[in-house]
Amino acid sequence: MTDTQFSTADIIQMEQPFRANFITSLSGFKSICLVGTTDPKGRTNLGLYSQVFHVGANPPLIGILVRPDTVVRDTLNNIIKTGHFTLNHVRPEFYQAAHHASAHHTQSEFELCGFTPQFSDLHPAPYVQEASIKLGLKLVQRTYIKLNGTILVIGEIVEALVPEECLQEDGYVDLEKAQSMTVSGLDSYHVTHRLNRLPTPEADSSFIVSTESMLS
Amino acid sequence: MTDTQFSTADIIQMEQPFRANFITSLSGFKSICLVGTTDPKGRTNLGLYSQVFHVGANPPLIGILVRPDTVVRDTLNNIIKTGHFTLNHVRPEFYQAAHHASAHHTQSEFELCGFTPQFSDLHPAPYVQEASIKLGLKLVQRTYIKLNGTILVIGEIVEALVPEECLQEDGYVDLEKAQSMTVSGLDSYHVTHRLNRLPTPEADSSFIVSTESMLS
Repeated sequence: MTDTQFSTADIIQMEQPFRANFITSLSGFKSICLVGTTDPKGRTNLGLYSQVFHVGANPPLIGILVRPDTVVRDTLNNIIKTGHFTLNHVRPEFYQAAHHASAHHTQSEFELCGFTPQFSDLHPAPYVQEASIKLGLKLVQRTYIKLNGTILVIGEIVEALVPEECLQEDGYVDLEKAQSMTVSGLDSYHVTHRLNRLPTPEADSSFIVSTESMLS
Repeated sequence: MTDTQFSTADIIQMEQPFRANFITSLSGFKSICLVGTTDPKGRTNLGLYSQVFHVGANPPLIGILVRPDTVVRDTLNNIIKTGHFTLNHVRPEFYQAAHHASAHHTQSEFELCGFTPQFSDLHPAPYVQEASIKLGLKLVQRTYIKLNGTILVIGEIVEALVPEECLQEDGYVDLEKAQSMTVSGLDSYHVTHRLNRLPTPEADSSFIVSTESMLS
């Protein structure tokens, strides 16, 4: 393959939406989740987020990056006011409806996109019943990223709903069995195929192609 | 599917490595990159990271979360001291060798895992020649996350090397054509299959199943 080189100047000169398509692709495959919230009056809201990432296991923390000057304002306002939100993994069966939730809608995206709200005793934020993996989170930190005006929202998991048959003996959750998808760029939706689970490598050892596998 | 419910108390009571396997799975599919650095004496280093995410397109920013108390110390020290690092997407051809770079090694992981360093005129950090998509970044912000002692490192892209045939007309970079992989949990490696690229949804419109596609 022949590489094309892009410098900072090349990138800054790109027109929109070319630059957004280009740069959002470069960080690699992303998680894709519907974020469920309610406003203080109990009205439900859904937004679609791909900047969702693992922050830590103890305490169990997940971060999302939100951009306050775009359509995600409802979600951010609701998280700040109610202190809670849900993350719901997107499945092939409804990824087109989920994508539709990424535009700004005055009406609740649950109704507009055909999702069913599901509530928990442990927190006030609505789950998407149609999702397989569902997480309820409590806001624990909000950090303003001055560089570009985004906000890092960190939530602690207060409830995880995982299909029984997706949980493996060692704690790994089989995201393929749960039909969780991945996204690249702004709008490309993918399913996955597992090549392998690999055993923990040993320190200060040379790499030798291994036939050992943790597939179960 | 029957859901199993896990509360905060359930999660805190999990033993290790069960909890780490469980929680790292829940945030969904992740990007997987080899991070290339040099120390001030010019000695090369590689680390493997899955907490890599898009921060913004203008300026072009990518974030990685690093945990200073584990094997990633070399990478973090080098980034701080030299101000630069590279991100190199992992391909099926070498994902086992890349996984091996996640352990702590005294010797350079380039040699130990069989990778070829590739240098640029634009910055001092080494690329992995075997990777398809390669990014050179300049450290622009380092934020300590007090909640769990991790550090959010944000880099600005100063150079992007992208295989010519992977760049589409609208700026989207075809990560499947580039053979970029995705990871789930701590050790599960996946390739992807694109279902579709979807057009930007309209505000305040109802969702109608569309046959329109942006696949090219």
